[in-house]
Amino acid sequence: MKKRLFTPGPTPVPESVMLKMAEPIIHHRHPEFKEILSRVNENLKYLFQTEQPVLTLASSGTGGVESTFVSLFSPGETIVSVNGGKFGERWVKMPRTFGLNAVEIKTEWGKAPTAEQIVAALRAHPNAKAVYLVHSETSTGTATDVKMLARVIRDNSDALVCIDGITAIGAHEFRFDEWGIDVCVTGSQKGLMIPPGLSFVAVSSRAISAMETSKLPKFYFDLRKALKAYEKNDTPWTPAISLIIGVDAALQMIRAEGVEKIWKRHERLAMALRAGIQAIGLRLFSDSPSFAVTPVWIPDGIEWKKFNSIMKEKYGITIAGGQEEFAGKIFRIAHLGYYDELDMITILSALEMTLVSCGHQFGAGKGVAAAQAFFAMNA
Amino acid sequence: MKKRLFTPGPTPVPESVMLKMAEPIIHHRHPEFKEILSRVNENLKYLFQTEQPVLTLASSGTGGVESTFVSLFSPGETIVSVNGGKFGERWVKMPRTFGLNAVEIKTEWGKAPTAEQIVAALRAHPNAKAVYLVHSETSTGTATDVKMLARVIRDNSDALVCIDGITAIGAHEFRFDEWGIDVCVTGSQKGLMIPPGLSFVAVSSRAISAMETSKLPKFYFDLRKALKAYEKNDTPWTPAISLIIGVDAALQMIRAEGVEKIWKRHERLAMALRAGIQAIGLRLFSDSPSFAVTPVWIPDGIEWKKFNSIMKEKYGITIAGGQEEFAGKIFRIAHLGYYDELDMITILSALEMTLVSCGHQFGAGKGVAAAQAFFAMNA
Repeated sequence: MKKRLFTPGPTPVPESVMLKMAEPIIHHRHPEFKEILSRVNENLKYLFQTEQPVLTLASSGTGGVESTFVSLFSPGETIVSVNGGKFGERWVKMPRTFGLNAVEIKTEWGKAPTAEQIVAALRAHPNAKAVYLVHSETSTGTATDVKMLARVIRDNSDALVCIDGITAIGAHEFRFDEWGIDVCVTGSQKGLMIPPGLSFVAVSSRAISAMETSKLPKFYFDLRKALKAYEKNDTPWTPAISLIIGVDAALQMIRAEGVEKIWKRHERLAMALRAGIQAIGLRLFSDSPSFAVTPVWIPDGIEWKKFNSIMKEKYGITIAGGQEEFAGKIFRIAHLGYYDELDMITILSALEMTLVSCGHQFGAGKGVAAAQAFFAMNA
Repeated sequence: MKKRLFTPGPTPVPESVMLKMAEPIIHHRHPEFKEILSRVNENLKYLFQTEQPVLTLASSGTGGVESTFVSLFSPGETIVSVNGGKFGERWVKMPRTFGLNAVEIKTEWGKAPTAEQIVAALRAHPNAKAVYLVHSETSTGTATDVKMLARVIRDNSDALVCIDGITAIGAHEFRFDEWGIDVCVTGSQKGLMIPPGLSFVAVSSRAISAMETSKLPKFYFDLRKALKAYEKNDTPWTPAISLIIGVDAALQMIRAEGVEKIWKRHERLAMALRAGIQAIGLRLFSDSPSFAVTPVWIPDGIEWKKFNSIMKEKYGITIAGGQEEFAGKIFRIAHLGYYDELDMITILSALEMTLVSCGHQFGAGKGVAAAQAFFAMNA
């Protein structure tokens, strides 16, 4: 059966990138690899829109975020962290594990944090060393206005602006330098279109200064070590060579398409998909939908397990379900990375045919038609 | 130019494994992936010769070793660590970073630790919670008699027996359960024949008990979390999917050949290579040579940079140089993982032709002849 992945990580890997990774392995201390790493470093700067270093680690995105906590702070220091879903929740638990005082701003699932919430937290905790925001919360498909909130944080404090960009980088407009961001982490299996196993951490000069005084113990995730190696196009530990070769190929595709066009493509695909979903009569879950993933309420009378098994077994399609209290209540369709217009038609068509199989009453074909119409009007 | 890798990590990846990893990516929460992970978990037990769990982490081997320090111990606790090279040195520095009292047993490069040294350290530090040994020290090509020393540690203390098996697993006989080992770490780019990016950590029930009382802060490298997920054929964080698919294919090859035959093959290749090297008139560096990598003194009058550039540019061969004080003094040829008899002939021939190009005086052809004779007599 032909299989299609519409999950927010891993995302589909372009065939040319997979074949590049399948070439004979080379040694990481070989000049050929240094050349690759040097090009990756340059192209990551372009992707993050920064002149600052973007460090590449052999870990999942969670490891990348951990590297920022342990490398920038000291025990007992206060950080503010926004929890609006499963990942935001993790960025509250994790710093607490390392003895940081994590002030939690809890937002309802599907709602983005507001400027007022951030300002209130910073007023209550003027000693906060950083604010952590999730640009696109995968569990809820909700986007945070990072540009605006970074401004708010900068205007109200000296706290570092730290971004979980894991499902946002490559999907949402993001300008590290222009927006005054200090830290941004992403993972390889998202907008970067390669398999999981790498994380990327951009650090501003303010973040680098914070590293110098940080007292939390660290070794593998010590960003000072990563930074020192980075300056020689090297890594402190054996890098995940094949994945770096993959990200080199993927970044060249990104560079060729142009990052602004890629943001626009993600927005367009997301909007078309949503037009289709609403034309079918389904309701969107998030108040502030991300361009990476679209969560949808499962209509009354449809059972998630049955619905999902038809999608999977009849149509070979993998989507994501809801998490925690929304398990069985929502599903999530990703359009992050290597997707185009016809992929949105494909997933809408599979969705319509599956709803018909589940006995759902609606005008079958309306979703696909609405997406087509959206594309026609927004060419 | 045809390229050949003779480095102790990365090691050559079999073509069939590379192509398996190049297949369309699948989602890690999909039943298809759980089936793969479940098979990997079973076959890892076979490779480590254990009935205990072998946990798979998305990190280099260094991350795997870090996971054992932070997951098993508490600040101020004493561990004994043998430093006989660059990696042993790292396993002294790393625990100190995390506030452990690391008692160092320093051995000369190229020499293995003795039972007397271990016993003396355990007598001087009866409170030691663990002894860390490097089974095959990559920087010096030196093997430690883990079976014998594990016995010595068990007979003299309650300390956990913790093994850096990074370049030993798949090359040297290793029996986790039978030998009473508590922790063993390996990496993916070694005997497991896949690209770097995964580490594997076997843990005994004594090690699992130690996790329960460990107070060092940890999150990404928390082996309790890994163990909990492992029981459901899952991982706590997004796994490095393509590498796990690769290791599944590689482990099936290992299972088909048989681990005891693989140990024997490594020994045989190492012995043949050494017979060839000695027939050329070169001197071996280590007193206790590893079956994974053979370090050789560079003969007088040969300049390493010139020698290496002929190997690389004329013959497309990558070997490893010496490290630290032995940089420019020794070279290292690996025979770890996907190698056979003819590969040893190939490297000996390249070595001979390079020595001729460097103007070295010796009986060219004698090395190859000696290796052939060794194979003939040890069929």
